[in-house]
Amino acid sequence: MTLAQTLALDVLETPCVLVDVDRVRANIARVQAYADRNRIRLRPHIKTHKIPLFARWQIEAGAVGITCQKLGEAEVMADAGIDDILLPYNLIGASKLQRLRRLAGRVSLRVTADSAFVVDGYAAAFADADAPLRVLIECDTGGGRCGVQDANQALQLARHIEACANLEFVGLMTYPAAGAEGRARAHAWLADTVARLTAAGLAPAEVSSGGTPDLWQAHASTGLTEYRPGTYIYLDRFQVAKGVGTFDDCALTVLSTVVSTPAPGRVVIDAGSKALTSDLLGMDGYGCVDGLPQARVVGLSEEHGILDVSACAVSPQVGDRLRIIPNHACPVSNLFDQIQLISAGKWLYSLPVAARGRVD
Amino acid sequence: MTLAQTLALDVLETPCVLVDVDRVRANIARVQAYADRNRIRLRPHIKTHKIPLFARWQIEAGAVGITCQKLGEAEVMADAGIDDILLPYNLIGASKLQRLRRLAGRVSLRVTADSAFVVDGYAAAFADADAPLRVLIECDTGGGRCGVQDANQALQLARHIEACANLEFVGLMTYPAAGAEGRARAHAWLADTVARLTAAGLAPAEVSSGGTPDLWQAHASTGLTEYRPGTYIYLDRFQVAKGVGTFDDCALTVLSTVVSTPAPGRVVIDAGSKALTSDLLGMDGYGCVDGLPQARVVGLSEEHGILDVSACAVSPQVGDRLRIIPNHACPVSNLFDQIQLISAGKWLYSLPVAARGRVD
Repeated sequence: MTLAQTLALDVLETPCVLVDVDRVRANIARVQAYADRNRIRLRPHIKTHKIPLFARWQIEAGAVGITCQKLGEAEVMADAGIDDILLPYNLIGASKLQRLRRLAGRVSLRVTADSAFVVDGYAAAFADADAPLRVLIECDTGGGRCGVQDANQALQLARHIEACANLEFVGLMTYPAAGAEGRARAHAWLADTVARLTAAGLAPAEVSSGGTPDLWQAHASTGLTEYRPGTYIYLDRFQVAKGVGTFDDCALTVLSTVVSTPAPGRVVIDAGSKALTSDLLGMDGYGCVDGLPQARVVGLSEEHGILDVSACAVSPQVGDRLRIIPNHACPVSNLFDQIQLISAGKWLYSLPVAARGRVD
Repeated sequence: MTLAQTLALDVLETPCVLVDVDRVRANIARVQAYADRNRIRLRPHIKTHKIPLFARWQIEAGAVGITCQKLGEAEVMADAGIDDILLPYNLIGASKLQRLRRLAGRVSLRVTADSAFVVDGYAAAFADADAPLRVLIECDTGGGRCGVQDANQALQLARHIEACANLEFVGLMTYPAAGAEGRARAHAWLADTVARLTAAGLAPAEVSSGGTPDLWQAHASTGLTEYRPGTYIYLDRFQVAKGVGTFDDCALTVLSTVVSTPAPGRVVIDAGSKALTSDLLGMDGYGCVDGLPQARVVGLSEEHGILDVSACAVSPQVGDRLRIIPNHACPVSNLFDQIQLISAGKWLYSLPVAARGRVD
């Protein structure tokens, strides 16, 4: 990507979100190549970026479509021309089901359910639809969130879906617990359930899993047809800790200004929880400072970040600018109306986070 | 407040933020009466609500003006006609200082500084201004964030401010550590510094403190002229834990829907960290459920909240709606483009969170 003119980052006010487009493209390409090599369909989760342009880049690279956690996000993406969407969420209530019905009229859509209550809502909303709504069953393979609990429940719900006119049972969806143990458990759970469903004449056409932390092990879970990673497009401190990439692969940083150095070892920046979120994800501190690995982000209030720089050879001064790699990139995207695209350390342009704040 | 027509909350999609206007009015009135009784000027911090209408209600009740943490928030409030604003933040950089200069042309403005670097920026920006910029010195009285560290530093900085043409030293500002010990330390710190400044002929006209947790003890800190509480307008689980009010005073709740009851004792709602934030503030769990005190909000992902309801006599069912009192109301305001005003359990109308997302 080149533009006639680029500008130094100095022109940007802080705090702001910088996104390195070269790293975004490299992250998309690297993961797509892995998926292609292993014949897994990639369906990136757009919760991380919430930006139609990046969804389009993901599809152009070879993704079969996208995943949206919220109907409102899916509507934004459909408005932008994305035409293949999975909504892996139990959608409940008359208003949401009407919106779902409208959305199904303009994109290739899949949804999920983990209870008869949710399935019945879909069935009622699509009773007079021209085409059936495709439904995957959400499976709790150890993640401890939503999902049917075992193969029996899955079979029962698959039969319920199939018994509904204008609903089509297409497969299983899970968001497994991360790590080797979680993967093993999810694999056994899914294998058992696929076998049960197949024996009952309801072989799932699709088995969809997700999660960036275990992305590079997706091929080892035989039977998966689809993977839904989200954070891989930006990466963050947590994903680096999990070994998914390096800090040099992290595309999203928060540019901040040192506003105070009130006491020895203490540096205060203008990025607080309103820029970085309070997400710890089990780690120590709220992010790390690009180029200053000894600095610790020890505390956040809404508009201030407190750094302990007592281990740093050189301490930042008031007015200096620091780039913070957040613990978790996805909720950071949701805090900013726009991101600042950069390339080779220069500012390109602002891009609206079009699906930010789509809560319902 | 009455409208010709009100609607049941059923018409609202979830998750959404409900704000009870009667409680808002009562919270404003109660705290203003306390401030009036104790002859402390109230300057509410609008970070909690970020809504011009509520700022106007606070001023109509008797507040001398408002406090904004960000220049962007102050600009929104000035656009809405609020004309007396304190910006207790070190403002740095050419662009921000230009914006500050413009803002000073249309409202009565005060800012703060804790270093010569910041003061020099103000001085340069206001060198040819018609009226001096009023500056308070930020004091670290134990809160451990920004601020000069002792009376000597305060005196030195006050002299520096007074030496700058078009800057006026008007007083001291602190955000103290909460609790009895924090208050005692802040009180001693401020008394010492006021004495030192007075002896040097620089008696501070204003001494401004803040924080909702210790709001009801503000009168005991003799010498304070102004108090800047924010959260008192809504209150939240943390403030109730601190004894500032009761759950019946909490004006802001997040309305959510039960989307899954996958396993005994586990209930999943559609309000996750994107609705409630990950703020723990030292508490157990991410909020509490209105009317269901035995339920614990044990986990959040971005779009899911996990409740442990094993201690509840009756467990919520899929499709039920639950109102969550968040740990911390302020960052919740920042996640929603609009709030839903309610009165007596009925929906009145939506109100934009006009200063949401003003990060700089």
